[in-house]
Amino acid sequence: MNLYDIIEKKRHGQSNTAAEVEYVIKGFTAGDIPDYMMSAYLMAVCINGADKDETFAMCKAMMESGDTLHFDSVVVDKHSTGGVSDSTSMILVPILASMGIDILKMSGRSLGFTGGTIDKIEVFSGYQADMSEKKLLEALHKNHGVIVSQSQDLCPADKKIYALRDKTATVDSIPLIASSIMSKKLATGAKIILLDVKYGSGAFMKSAENAVKLARTMVDIGRSYDRQVMAVVTDMDSPLGSSIGAKFEVADVLDVLDGKSSDLGNLAKFFACEIAGMYYKDQGKEIKRADIEATIDTIISSGAAKEKFFDIVKFGGGDISVVENLTKTKYSLEYKAKSAGYISRLDAYSLSKIVREMTDSAQDKASVGLRLNVNIGDKVNMGDTICTLHSNDKISSAIINALDSAVVISKKKTVKQLVYKVVR
Amino acid sequence: MNLYDIIEKKRHGQSNTAAEVEYVIKGFTAGDIPDYMMSAYLMAVCINGADKDETFAMCKAMMESGDTLHFDSVVVDKHSTGGVSDSTSMILVPILASMGIDILKMSGRSLGFTGGTIDKIEVFSGYQADMSEKKLLEALHKNHGVIVSQSQDLCPADKKIYALRDKTATVDSIPLIASSIMSKKLATGAKIILLDVKYGSGAFMKSAENAVKLARTMVDIGRSYDRQVMAVVTDMDSPLGSSIGAKFEVADVLDVLDGKSSDLGNLAKFFACEIAGMYYKDQGKEIKRADIEATIDTIISSGAAKEKFFDIVKFGGGDISVVENLTKTKYSLEYKAKSAGYISRLDAYSLSKIVREMTDSAQDKASVGLRLNVNIGDKVNMGDTICTLHSNDKISSAIINALDSAVVISKKKTVKQLVYKVVR
Repeated sequence: MNLYDIIEKKRHGQSNTAAEVEYVIKGFTAGDIPDYMMSAYLMAVCINGADKDETFAMCKAMMESGDTLHFDSVVVDKHSTGGVSDSTSMILVPILASMGIDILKMSGRSLGFTGGTIDKIEVFSGYQADMSEKKLLEALHKNHGVIVSQSQDLCPADKKIYALRDKTATVDSIPLIASSIMSKKLATGAKIILLDVKYGSGAFMKSAENAVKLARTMVDIGRSYDRQVMAVVTDMDSPLGSSIGAKFEVADVLDVLDGKSSDLGNLAKFFACEIAGMYYKDQGKEIKRADIEATIDTIISSGAAKEKFFDIVKFGGGDISVVENLTKTKYSLEYKAKSAGYISRLDAYSLSKIVREMTDSAQDKASVGLRLNVNIGDKVNMGDTICTLHSNDKISSAIINALDSAVVISKKKTVKQLVYKVVR
Repeated sequence: MNLYDIIEKKRHGQSNTAAEVEYVIKGFTAGDIPDYMMSAYLMAVCINGADKDETFAMCKAMMESGDTLHFDSVVVDKHSTGGVSDSTSMILVPILASMGIDILKMSGRSLGFTGGTIDKIEVFSGYQADMSEKKLLEALHKNHGVIVSQSQDLCPADKKIYALRDKTATVDSIPLIASSIMSKKLATGAKIILLDVKYGSGAFMKSAENAVKLARTMVDIGRSYDRQVMAVVTDMDSPLGSSIGAKFEVADVLDVLDGKSSDLGNLAKFFACEIAGMYYKDQGKEIKRADIEATIDTIISSGAAKEKFFDIVKFGGGDISVVENLTKTKYSLEYKAKSAGYISRLDAYSLSKIVREMTDSAQDKASVGLRLNVNIGDKVNMGDTICTLHSNDKISSAIINALDSAVVISKKKTVKQLVYKVVR
């Protein structure tokens, strides 16, 4: 097989065969294909795309590049393509675990403007997110749920390719994203997978249309491996929760587990309900959706979900006493409405950027956060507090300008549509 | 300036600024930009193109990466984008030199399926194509014409970029080809430049349309540096001369210089006439085209051009006695017409490939060649000789199959249009 010819075909918008794609992925992983040829290939894929066979072949080769996990029980998994103030995992893991459904949540760290579950769970000082396979099994056996960082032994091809994509502006490609995500999901051995595909200013996919395409591709890949997969395309134009900043987002999670209603909680419960539905179907059990929803509500209202969350944190070595002081900071700055009307925009990307810039310049980085008092569609009067910035370092008032362009108040009421589409 | 952002802009089909392009070319040449980022950029340019400003900036940065030559006299140059059996340079250099016009022909070696002037001039054993600037000036002073290989000191950026393009399937791009060729032409200091842009099966540009685009781009670049430039878009679907193989192509050249009429001779004389026209215009002299043509005819018929050619060869140290035995080989195989009709196709790429494959497997590689007895549009009877293969190694009769698909005889007469378009 000739690598030059393979790249040339893709450069001219032709399709490569599955064998050719496999040759590229395996050759690059083994170190036989130099970076400069791989980046040319990746750029050609980014611009000219890849068809279904090529995407499936990429995913297969990446999955087969490392270990794959196998479980005796049915294990479920959930993955978000990344967003701002998205802490659904930390809510649905304890809910499902409380229902006796084994959920193994392998998560990543913050990437660019998006938050990462591992950074948030590490708010509980002492938490060890790197766990051996033995420890994972022990966690599932004991608690039915566990939050861990991505194993180094799974999908080494994906890691090597991602590192190159990250340096060569070849990240935003549906076939490359789909095969990267799905190779990891398949390798973790989950039989039931829910994918949260985000679109909007605070997501990697800017348009709903592309998010649906990505969702379709990933669901199709999962199906071909006989997994139950569904993808939910959700809004990421505004932050999902009320907070940005790891400590503050953990506070959001605790609010939901304490029974407070919010978009974050509603979406997490919707995901938990869908995953449970797939799980029961797989087990041959017919359970009505209304019954699942009622069970989830009881799990939260009884305090079982919160208790389970703490059990999961404690299993990983995390100190739960930190919850006492999550949002207390030396300094805070309230941002107030400059006119009356309805909140029509809380730009996720801009708000995330403000928090990131405050963090970068702060001494006590972990103390920095933003808490929203309002959501899209809320009515406000002039002078009402829109959000509060927190930090143990002094907050420059110059930040007001940045907030001015992130927040829009309109005369007409806008309704936020959290779930754009479900792809099965 | 951020390289990632520059690549990302190009990946999304946006234009880079001239400063950004310069940053990329200079950074790569200096070794500050790694190969894997450069190849991603080059692939994005190949697929998404580059606008006029970007192409000009690329060319300028490559030209400025090394030495540039300057002459007291007006020096002319000619460049072909590469074809099969194209030996016009070896004919027009002695013609123009005989007219007292200084022509410095920096040439390359064979590339892929195309022949290179340096490989042909080295048929004259002892010829030293690498010459110092001092020697070049001496050659121009003595003979008015010289054929040398590309100086290593000109356009190092182009050399480094080309080496990467050659390995990453990023060769066929109009902006990249145009800036590569023109950076070298501008660096050689020629004031008058004729570009032969070939299209067809035996050329890098397969379509006349793309060849015209390339021609337009190169002429525009040259103009912006106040050079007189014209491009001639010519046919390369069939070989230009009657022979393929360095020795045999030199024999073609000698035939033309001996006064034999052929497409090769006609095109070389057309180029010489156009270059002379531009030269006289530059000198403020008004000389009629018919007079220039008559002068060229006299230069050939008098033997002056052939004598000048030998002077040029001897200046470089070449042994002219080799001309006695150019086409004599131990073995030959005649390929005969399988039907009567008109020659409608002599596929340049296929014929070149046949010669290359014979050469690859031969002990005496320099002995291998092909001589055509016919041209496009010629009438043949069944059994007439179409071409003869030559070699000092035995010739496998299996080669007949390959010739069958390279040669087409039709009932209808086809007329070859040598010059498709002149771009000024």
